[in-house]
Amino acid sequence: MQNNRICRLISAPGSNSDILYGSGFNAADEFTYFEIDGKRFIAVSVLEFSRALEEAKEGVTVLDRMDIIRSLPQDAPCRDFFVALSKKYDVSRWIVPDSFPLGYADLLRKNGIDVEPVHGDFFPQRAEKTPDEIRKIRHAMKVTQNAMVSVRDMIESASVNTHGMLVRKNGDLLTSEFVRREVEAEFKRQSYTADRTIIAGGIQGSAPHCIGEGPLPAGKPIVCDIFPRSDETGYWGDMTRTFCKGKAAPVVVRAYESVRRASEKALAMLKAGIVGADVHVCAARSMESDGFTAHKNANGIPCGFIHGLGHGVGLDIHEQPRLAPSNKHPLECNSVVSVEPGLYDPDWGGIRLEDLVLVTKDGYENFCTMEKELEVR
Amino acid sequence: MQNNRICRLISAPGSNSDILYGSGFNAADEFTYFEIDGKRFIAVSVLEFSRALEEAKEGVTVLDRMDIIRSLPQDAPCRDFFVALSKKYDVSRWIVPDSFPLGYADLLRKNGIDVEPVHGDFFPQRAEKTPDEIRKIRHAMKVTQNAMVSVRDMIESASVNTHGMLVRKNGDLLTSEFVRREVEAEFKRQSYTADRTIIAGGIQGSAPHCIGEGPLPAGKPIVCDIFPRSDETGYWGDMTRTFCKGKAAPVVVRAYESVRRASEKALAMLKAGIVGADVHVCAARSMESDGFTAHKNANGIPCGFIHGLGHGVGLDIHEQPRLAPSNKHPLECNSVVSVEPGLYDPDWGGIRLEDLVLVTKDGYENFCTMEKELEVR
Repeated sequence: MQNNRICRLISAPGSNSDILYGSGFNAADEFTYFEIDGKRFIAVSVLEFSRALEEAKEGVTVLDRMDIIRSLPQDAPCRDFFVALSKKYDVSRWIVPDSFPLGYADLLRKNGIDVEPVHGDFFPQRAEKTPDEIRKIRHAMKVTQNAMVSVRDMIESASVNTHGMLVRKNGDLLTSEFVRREVEAEFKRQSYTADRTIIAGGIQGSAPHCIGEGPLPAGKPIVCDIFPRSDETGYWGDMTRTFCKGKAAPVVVRAYESVRRASEKALAMLKAGIVGADVHVCAARSMESDGFTAHKNANGIPCGFIHGLGHGVGLDIHEQPRLAPSNKHPLECNSVVSVEPGLYDPDWGGIRLEDLVLVTKDGYENFCTMEKELEVR
Repeated sequence: MQNNRICRLISAPGSNSDILYGSGFNAADEFTYFEIDGKRFIAVSVLEFSRALEEAKEGVTVLDRMDIIRSLPQDAPCRDFFVALSKKYDVSRWIVPDSFPLGYADLLRKNGIDVEPVHGDFFPQRAEKTPDEIRKIRHAMKVTQNAMVSVRDMIESASVNTHGMLVRKNGDLLTSEFVRREVEAEFKRQSYTADRTIIAGGIQGSAPHCIGEGPLPAGKPIVCDIFPRSDETGYWGDMTRTFCKGKAAPVVVRAYESVRRASEKALAMLKAGIVGADVHVCAARSMESDGFTAHKNANGIPCGFIHGLGHGVGLDIHEQPRLAPSNKHPLECNSVVSVEPGLYDPDWGGIRLEDLVLVTKDGYENFCTMEKELEVR
């Protein structure tokens, strides 16, 4: 009989968004999620037991992992938790995520229990957001966009000193670190957590994930990429704008306009059923036709449009579906994706414009209503 | 020749503290760390390439992962990154962490490459902190203790309303959420990140990892467990105090004194060479002899001292060495451990007192100089 059952298992060190999705429970320390024919369980340490009872989704059975280990006979040859779990629930084959820890799998296999990794998503339904998830992402994006407006305000209200650097009203230099700390502190007051918020001015912005440091320059692009996660729901927001205090160099203006056009063309294509790769290629070709080709410069540094156009956002900041050459699948209705063309060059810096949108039957809803403007006076 | 080489490999979704330890580089998205006979490499996406060049430790070679995939012949039967990496560096056997993703390991093995998980720590030397690591942890603990002082001040300066609830100077109720947000926002201003900061009043504190919600009560224990991570160094702080606004019930006072005695006895034992389990047992016995035994109550909720006495703290909030029954090894000089006896009971709440200490040749240095006092008037 047991061979007809579908038994699925997740366990991994650290917080895991698949487990959060499946069980509604999250913890910093490892705990175990499993399903037997769709019936869901979590096995937690005694430390988390009463909290798990309170927080787990309806229909999820909470178990004390010590009770499972104790279910083994005293003289069992292997007192491992996963072996005990398999015996207690009479499981001879587990389906696990690709990322399942090898050490556990090897031990299970040695004890005669099959372990088969799923290639791709463990919960493919995560790509298609429910109304409740959309509500949570909408909230995250409201908080994110408010932060972006406050960053723009900080740049707008700054003055410029004789060295071409931005200066706050109190006379201090306006630095990447100051802007980042202000944004991230304000997020915490709203029960959101952000770190590595990108406020990268001048050539720092040419490395897409450089967070930026030091005084912010006038007349150069400042890449601002803001992505907080709700402490309460676990859902992320994600948005990027690039600003320039005062007048930008012609090459920067050309790059900005090229990125903005690529964004518009990509957004115009978006709707349920469109293939992820096609949207990426459309944006890439648009920037290429403007003369911005991907290449490595003389120092081996990648330049141009050097990343995927977009990614799903939900309980993970980067999840399915991708708007990238690798994704040959049509987008599902109610998927949430970033659209973020960008151009990078150590000669002048970086430009990235990122919206987060809900893919609908006929098009999309853009969670980012803030306009895209380069020069802030 | 290659069979004599020691080839080690780490790759995992999300941020990984072993990779950060080995390479000095950290990223939200997956990248790969490997060593060949002690020579260290990271292979990152083009998105992270220039940042990795800047941030990686001296002696770490930064590679573009696409260059590795491209090193395969066009007609190679498998275009997987790990297979390509193994061929490029002529590796027939990788040593990996226990947590290495099963999907990668299965594919490597199918391609004739051995993958052997290490049981226990991938970098056992992480338990013994270097002077530079101690300096970083000391900074984290200074920031942590300052936050704890500010929490105590918020409780001290609150008044008590006719419902026995704490009230701020502005007339609002003092809630768990307010205290948490203030603490976490202030951390961000100092480039530290915290979430799930525990401010759990009354019976909420009886679940060790309940973060607490709603108005804080007078006359009941409030468990305050604060653990921020430095955005700059990656090192954690960790500290717990339990306060009571006004007079506590006799059982709470007895529990507090029992926990404090257990802490003192455990600390008095600490020095390099002592066995982790022995320190735990000493604290557990001390509380048992005070009448606080571990048990489950009529509702199946665990009560008493229901967790390990302590854990290592470094790039992970919970790492080696443990002060717990499972750790039969002697502590190394310069390990950093928490000492955190606690008692929990849904009848009255929780008490936990956590210090973080550096284990030295002859004893310990306590990073927490704040006194342990229950009643705050």
